[in-house]
Amino acid sequence: MKRTLFTLTLVSVILVNLFAEDGHNLWLRNKNTGNVTVVCSEKSATIGIAVQELKQGWQGMDGATITLKIKKDKAIKNDGFKLSPTQIQSNTPLGILYGTYELLRRQQTGEPIEDKVVYNPSYEVRTLNHWDNLDGTIERGYAGHSIFWDKEKNLLTPTVQEKLRWKEYARANASIGLNGSVLNNVNASPDMLTAGILKRVKEIADVLRPYGIKTYISVKFSSPVLTGGLKTSDPLDPTVIKWWNDKVKEIYKLVPDFGGFLVKASSEGQPGPQDFGRTHADGANMLADALKPFGGIVMWRAFVYSPSDKDRAKQAYNEFMPLDGQFRDNVIIQVKNGPIDFQPREPFSPLFGAMKKTSVMPELQITQEYLGHSIHLVFLSTMWEELLKSDTYQQGEGSTVARCTDGSIYNQKYTAIAGVSNIGLDTNWCGHDFAQANWYAFGRLAWNNQLTSPEIADEWIKLTFENDSLRNITTDWTENFLIPVKQMMMQSREAAVNYMMPLGLHHIFSANEHYGPGPWWAPKGMRADWTPPYYHQADSQGIGFDRTHSGSDAVSQYHEPLCSQFNDVKTCPEIYLLWFHHLSWDYKMKSGRNLWDEICYHYDTGLNKVREFQKTWDKVEKYVDVERFKKVQCKLRSQSRNAQIWKDACLLYFQQFSKKPIPYKLERPVYELDELMKNDSIRISKAN
Amino acid sequence: MKRTLFTLTLVSVILVNLFAEDGHNLWLRNKNTGNVTVVCSEKSATIGIAVQELKQGWQGMDGATITLKIKKDKAIKNDGFKLSPTQIQSNTPLGILYGTYELLRRQQTGEPIEDKVVYNPSYEVRTLNHWDNLDGTIERGYAGHSIFWDKEKNLLTPTVQEKLRWKEYARANASIGLNGSVLNNVNASPDMLTAGILKRVKEIADVLRPYGIKTYISVKFSSPVLTGGLKTSDPLDPTVIKWWNDKVKEIYKLVPDFGGFLVKASSEGQPGPQDFGRTHADGANMLADALKPFGGIVMWRAFVYSPSDKDRAKQAYNEFMPLDGQFRDNVIIQVKNGPIDFQPREPFSPLFGAMKKTSVMPELQITQEYLGHSIHLVFLSTMWEELLKSDTYQQGEGSTVARCTDGSIYNQKYTAIAGVSNIGLDTNWCGHDFAQANWYAFGRLAWNNQLTSPEIADEWIKLTFENDSLRNITTDWTENFLIPVKQMMMQSREAAVNYMMPLGLHHIFSANEHYGPGPWWAPKGMRADWTPPYYHQADSQGIGFDRTHSGSDAVSQYHEPLCSQFNDVKTCPEIYLLWFHHLSWDYKMKSGRNLWDEICYHYDTGLNKVREFQKTWDKVEKYVDVERFKKVQCKLRSQSRNAQIWKDACLLYFQQFSKKPIPYKLERPVYELDELMKNDSIRISKAN
Repeated sequence: MKRTLFTLTLVSVILVNLFAEDGHNLWLRNKNTGNVTVVCSEKSATIGIAVQELKQGWQGMDGATITLKIKKDKAIKNDGFKLSPTQIQSNTPLGILYGTYELLRRQQTGEPIEDKVVYNPSYEVRTLNHWDNLDGTIERGYAGHSIFWDKEKNLLTPTVQEKLRWKEYARANASIGLNGSVLNNVNASPDMLTAGILKRVKEIADVLRPYGIKTYISVKFSSPVLTGGLKTSDPLDPTVIKWWNDKVKEIYKLVPDFGGFLVKASSEGQPGPQDFGRTHADGANMLADALKPFGGIVMWRAFVYSPSDKDRAKQAYNEFMPLDGQFRDNVIIQVKNGPIDFQPREPFSPLFGAMKKTSVMPELQITQEYLGHSIHLVFLSTMWEELLKSDTYQQGEGSTVARCTDGSIYNQKYTAIAGVSNIGLDTNWCGHDFAQANWYAFGRLAWNNQLTSPEIADEWIKLTFENDSLRNITTDWTENFLIPVKQMMMQSREAAVNYMMPLGLHHIFSANEHYGPGPWWAPKGMRADWTPPYYHQADSQGIGFDRTHSGSDAVSQYHEPLCSQFNDVKTCPEIYLLWFHHLSWDYKMKSGRNLWDEICYHYDTGLNKVREFQKTWDKVEKYVDVERFKKVQCKLRSQSRNAQIWKDACLLYFQQFSKKPIPYKLERPVYELDELMKNDSIRISKAN
Repeated sequence: MKRTLFTLTLVSVILVNLFAEDGHNLWLRNKNTGNVTVVCSEKSATIGIAVQELKQGWQGMDGATITLKIKKDKAIKNDGFKLSPTQIQSNTPLGILYGTYELLRRQQTGEPIEDKVVYNPSYEVRTLNHWDNLDGTIERGYAGHSIFWDKEKNLLTPTVQEKLRWKEYARANASIGLNGSVLNNVNASPDMLTAGILKRVKEIADVLRPYGIKTYISVKFSSPVLTGGLKTSDPLDPTVIKWWNDKVKEIYKLVPDFGGFLVKASSEGQPGPQDFGRTHADGANMLADALKPFGGIVMWRAFVYSPSDKDRAKQAYNEFMPLDGQFRDNVIIQVKNGPIDFQPREPFSPLFGAMKKTSVMPELQITQEYLGHSIHLVFLSTMWEELLKSDTYQQGEGSTVARCTDGSIYNQKYTAIAGVSNIGLDTNWCGHDFAQANWYAFGRLAWNNQLTSPEIADEWIKLTFENDSLRNITTDWTENFLIPVKQMMMQSREAAVNYMMPLGLHHIFSANEHYGPGPWWAPKGMRADWTPPYYHQADSQGIGFDRTHSGSDAVSQYHEPLCSQFNDVKTCPEIYLLWFHHLSWDYKMKSGRNLWDEICYHYDTGLNKVREFQKTWDKVEKYVDVERFKKVQCKLRSQSRNAQIWKDACLLYFQQFSKKPIPYKLERPVYELDELMKNDSIRISKAN
């Protein structure tokens, strides 16, 4: 009897585990509802995948036939394809695969499939940047260790399990149109270029290749000395040039379609050409020359700032603009969305559109370093959309960041976009189930930078939360799940801005962990531009960083009419107000409130918005599997607690300067400032 | 130069300290605004105090004359007095002192002083019970160590500082009409009756005496064995009787006006007459006989319950009712307000009014053991008023607890009331500045059990927060300070009930510290009636303790019509609903909601009320000194955090049984149940 009971229990535990929804399948959940015949005259690993995906996930007419046709067509660019209800046409097998995913997505979400519509990607190179260290940790990663690296396994033959994970990863990327992976941290280890590690790069590249994912690596500029044993890493030194040439050859022998190098040089303590009195162009070009014969590229980061200058926001522009035109055509300058560093909100970097003779690519951050890690629900698509649609005016009205970078305006040899990945070994890849939406959104925007966030959210929700009973999407599901959840996602980034850094405030995090509030953080002797007071400039008179003509003059890096608009407090958008202006606490806002009150209202609005999200989510309980429901519910609770901490910390801290009461209509703080300042465990509160 | 700066700094530090408002002066802040001539034919220490108080605090007509007249008057009872604008008359010097305080209070608060109005106290004996241990700690004390005891100082001659504190204490008590102090914990140390400690009792009594404060002590029933070295403490044993007689004589030699003993016996592990097969009456009477010749009394506690019975709420009644009529006339049975233990809300103890041939006195708890310690702002006057006005119906309608205990109905030899003190060595006496209001309210109700809580709050606020600029109370101050603060106080106890234990829930605290929520707490092997599940009885069917005829039948201990009213779920007041009934989660409440939803609404209402209090307090900032403003603000923040924890813990815990969603209109929990259950530091959260 006892044994029977035990067996029954065991079986049910196993069954539950088999069917437990762990989020691992991401947005790839479609199962076929009928048969399809796939006709294709060509064979390749990539075509094989396309055929398998179509058969596995077919939700069109039962018994239909679909033709995969590889045929040159000038209307089809790069990895693009022409989609019809019964045919996918492309110049390449990879285009066929992308068309396959587009077709299946449309079947699943119920979007129409019209005849002979051409889909071309906005960017040629669509990469994920993995800030993965060789020891397996991930800088700013919040979803477990690296899927690529492990200090115990790097030099061993990859296991079946590891390869399976890489394959799942490649499939997920391909399904949303990504075609490149930079496998390691921009703060690169010199070991990356050693034979053992390069062997693993080859193993990974072999798995990614059929899915069209090119492999890239980040390199340390001082590798010739550190790995090669040379006496210098001077980019103009012939031995150095030779060393890199040889190294590139070695890599291409292992990985014939190797993508190229990502380089963080002369930035935040990383070595670079400036160590030898050379320019960024000297450094980048030397590497570009080595890669050129193999079709490789150099993505050279513009994230540079030194302690000497008065305004960090201006430095990348100041350093790179003089070099415009000096870079090889296979160098792309990789520019973070904002002039500082992936803050909840920044105006676009003035380098976009300004460098007219150089390829420039946006670097977005998918991992939520400054936006609540994998604890806060923040749909980043709206932030990226805001960037891509920002008008630089560099070639007249309509010179959006999207058009300045995707080749619409400038004749770049290469167009590219990069997203710093948020994935790790966590079963659900991203830690937060909704963080998957950011991976998804990045891919979709990289493919089509004109997509809107509601469209992307709509797709993602349908693909991710649909289940058998919802195969035919019902009105009930749409009204009571899709719409409210989409609304929550759409509002989530503005909520985070409000409870963290509204009205143009930026970089007021607590040190290092970049999670909780720390507007006070400024240890003695610390570089000023690493401390929040440098950025908020709060004093008894007011708050904000004066970047007008009478301040740091960062406004002058923007093309007119933006320069004048940002410079004039009356025309500066309020979302950037304290980014560009130091204003009196009494400054009258458009709402009629004074600045201090307005700040208070924003923080309060942010907190209450998170509480609304909690209600939204709790209400949709019956539409979601219990596992993901509970996990997201738990994360939202933490987010709510943390939003309270952000609000209290910032208002109580700034109140010391404003000396004004928090408007009495608003809910009062519940924490003490000194407690928040000294107690990391309360401030960080990352228990969940 | 440096020295000058140093001196200046020192002076300013001293000045700030001199004028910093630390709350030490309680409600005694009146300074004279004119001269008065005091005429009195008698002299005594007490009269001397009265004269000094009048001169110090006179706020009547400048140059007036007031006569203090000691003259027998039958209309004046006990410590009563007859007050006129120019005369205070009494039978005793103490009555004159009480009249003095009444006069000064009226002057300060602006209440009229009419001609020849007699004021008599409701109770003859009006005591504070100090749960102070001889080592200086205080059981359930939240305002520092004992003002009476200190393990290093008990056997030394009291210092000037100690005596000053005792005098301040006596004055504060006298000013609100209290006339007795039980100096030590009811869980009494046998050392209390040793010569060294009794010497200190004498020292204290000498300081308290001029203010009319009689001294009492708690005694351990087994003292004859533990202190006296006898073989038994059997109350009928002649050697025991003799030992107590001798001990009483010894005490009266030291303290000629000694008040008597307070005894906790055969209760919660304390020794008592039942250890020897004797009754409570046997034990109490033996001590009463020893005290009788000196006019002393015995206050014998009815707080008894054993693990054997099925309903703890019934036990005191069951044990004491059979003894009614068997007690000496100088024994008073001291009965806690409710049948369980000082919970945020209980129905009155059925012993009130039921014991018709025995003196019965209410024991109230001023220290907030179950009501947020010295962290939560809870004005207890409303709770006590609710008790005193509860109709027992024991002698027909109008047989309120007040009238059943104050001699209006029963011909008790002694009438008395006790309050468990909330004071300690904290500079502001009570920890929370608003906890002073509870000390004040207890004194005022002990003097006049017909006073209403708004009257008491009104007095206390005026006396405590008035300052020079408010001597003539302005409309502005009344409207913007007095009224909102009074409203906050008036709503505060109901708020605490709502966020802790609404609708008759009781005793669901976390163990031991009696601060945070712990409805789950039930370690294996623990006495059931020490665990919350015993009291809430939550299960999949519903919640609540069935004390109806079909349950434990505790309702039968109440006189009709209460018995029927409580027994019938339709007539049982909803505030006591789950005290008397186990009801389905779906039970339909008067609001139209089901029981589960109603519980949720109550917890949510409680939390939001505390948030309202925060707003109320922040708004009055300009009317309060900065020190008390900040302290109270800080406490309210903690209270708000803790109310959130209470709400989340209770709702998430009970939701496991109800399996129903928290109504979606309500703000969602922000904590996780398992986190709250395992993490004391979060649950208790007593940092401030």
